[in-house]
Amino acid sequence: MATNEILRRLEAVLAERKSASPDSSYVARLYAEGLNEILEKIGEEATETILAAKDFHGFSRTDSRDDVVRETADLWFHTLVMLSYLDVSHNEILAELDRRFGTSGIEEKARRTSADTK
Amino acid sequence: MATNEILRRLEAVLAERKSASPDSSYVARLYAEGLNEILEKIGEEATETILAAKDFHGFSRTDSRDDVVRETADLWFHTLVMLSYLDVSHNEILAELDRRFGTSGIEEKARRTSADTK
Amino acid sequence: MATNEILRRLEAVLAERKSASPDSSYVARLYAEGLNEILEKIGEEATETILAAKDFHGFSRTDSRDDVVRETADLWFHTLVMLSYLDVSHNEILAELDRRFGTSGIEEKARRTSADTK
Amino acid sequence: MATNEILRRLEAVLAERKSASPDSSYVARLYAEGLNEILEKIGEEATETILAAKDFHGFSRTDSRDDVVRETADLWFHTLVMLSYLDVSHNEILAELDRRFGTSGIEEKARRTSADTK
Repeated sequence: MATNEILRRLEAVLAERKSASPDSSYVARLYAEGLNEILEKIGEEATETILAAKDFHGFSRTDSRDDVVRETADLWFHTLVMLSYLDVSHNEILAELDRRFGTSGIEEKARRTSADTK
Repeated sequence: MATNEILRRLEAVLAERKSASPDSSYVARLYAEGLNEILEKIGEEATETILAAKDFHGFSRTDSRDDVVRETADLWFHTLVMLSYLDVSHNEILAELDRRFGTSGIEEKARRTSADTK
Repeated sequence: MATNEILRRLEAVLAERKSASPDSSYVARLYAEGLNEILEKIGEEATETILAAKDFHGFSRTDSRDDVVRETADLWFHTLVMLSYLDVSHNEILAELDRRFGTSGIEEKARRTSADTK
Repeated sequence: MATNEILRRLEAVLAERKSASPDSSYVARLYAEGLNEILEKIGEEATETILAAKDFHGFSRTDSRDDVVRETADLWFHTLVMLSYLDVSHNEILAELDRRFGTSGIEEKARRTSADTK
């Protein structure tokens, strides 16, 4: 399956779950618990991604590499759940990445960031 | 541009920057500063995404919606920088999301999560 | 100076800064920028504490140990700024820690936590 | 109980738990699970503190105020567990806060921070 197809289909599944019974799946339960619960998962998965990256970089074990893949997928997954909860499409995120794309785009980000820290 | 094309081209640009002079761009500087700096950005952007989501959900202002898009893009962007630094392709993340795709996949995640918290 | 004296005096200084000009100090500027800026600092310092702990545990270098002390102090400091901004005293936090103190208190926390994850 | 007494006694209890059976208490289990588990808790509690502060600031409900107290206590508690795990005393953190204490100390922090973001 093409990569854009994966995100597109995942978004469709997440949208369906919004009207499902909280008992029917992990995602339906997350929706029912509300935004704070979804955002707590984003905080958790960001921390776990950071720890997996440190362990992989420090020791380069195969299982640490798998942890990086798994935790990053968890982090992206829960940001997709948040976007779905807020009725924002992942396409808007990709369009924003596209807008900053290439040399000029990344430089624009750099300028914005240094302006932020003034 | 197709969405998978965006991630694919962004990954190619990030790979190029790994051998560029630290002064040449924001990303080249991040690489030079090393993994901790990249991971700090992931922690920062996760927090900013959480705050943007709270503000948007609470007040539903248009500029808050833009913040959600921008901060989520920043979070994904810096996870792509981390993956590039660790020589992990975003395709592995998408394949992991695909593996858990659909009803069965999401249920599998739910089971794994509840096993984790035992 | 006794340890409770340190937190008490720090709280008094922070309270004073709330009415100071934003240009007069780092804390006065943080207050002027508002709650999101303060909370972003908490997210940042939590991440930096986590990274310092990983580096110290992995390599046990003296400078890594100093980083743990410095980043944890930064994290506590910015939680004190948040508490001051919200008109909550650090004494309420210490009283809450006291309430959960000792074997019974810590067990109570454990029970609460496992109830949360059901 | 004086506030420094609370932290001092909590530190003593945490030290005792390091040699206890993992089944005997929440903290003994955390120690047995290792540093990553402790640091994940710090990431989680930082996120929950941020969410509680946003909810309290936005709606000023009494239960939100209680959440701020409870989540900040959880965050401090888990940093104390981390310090104990790494054999760092909370007195070193308080001494670091003391060193930066008062006008001059907080200004010093401000200078260091703006140097960091150059």
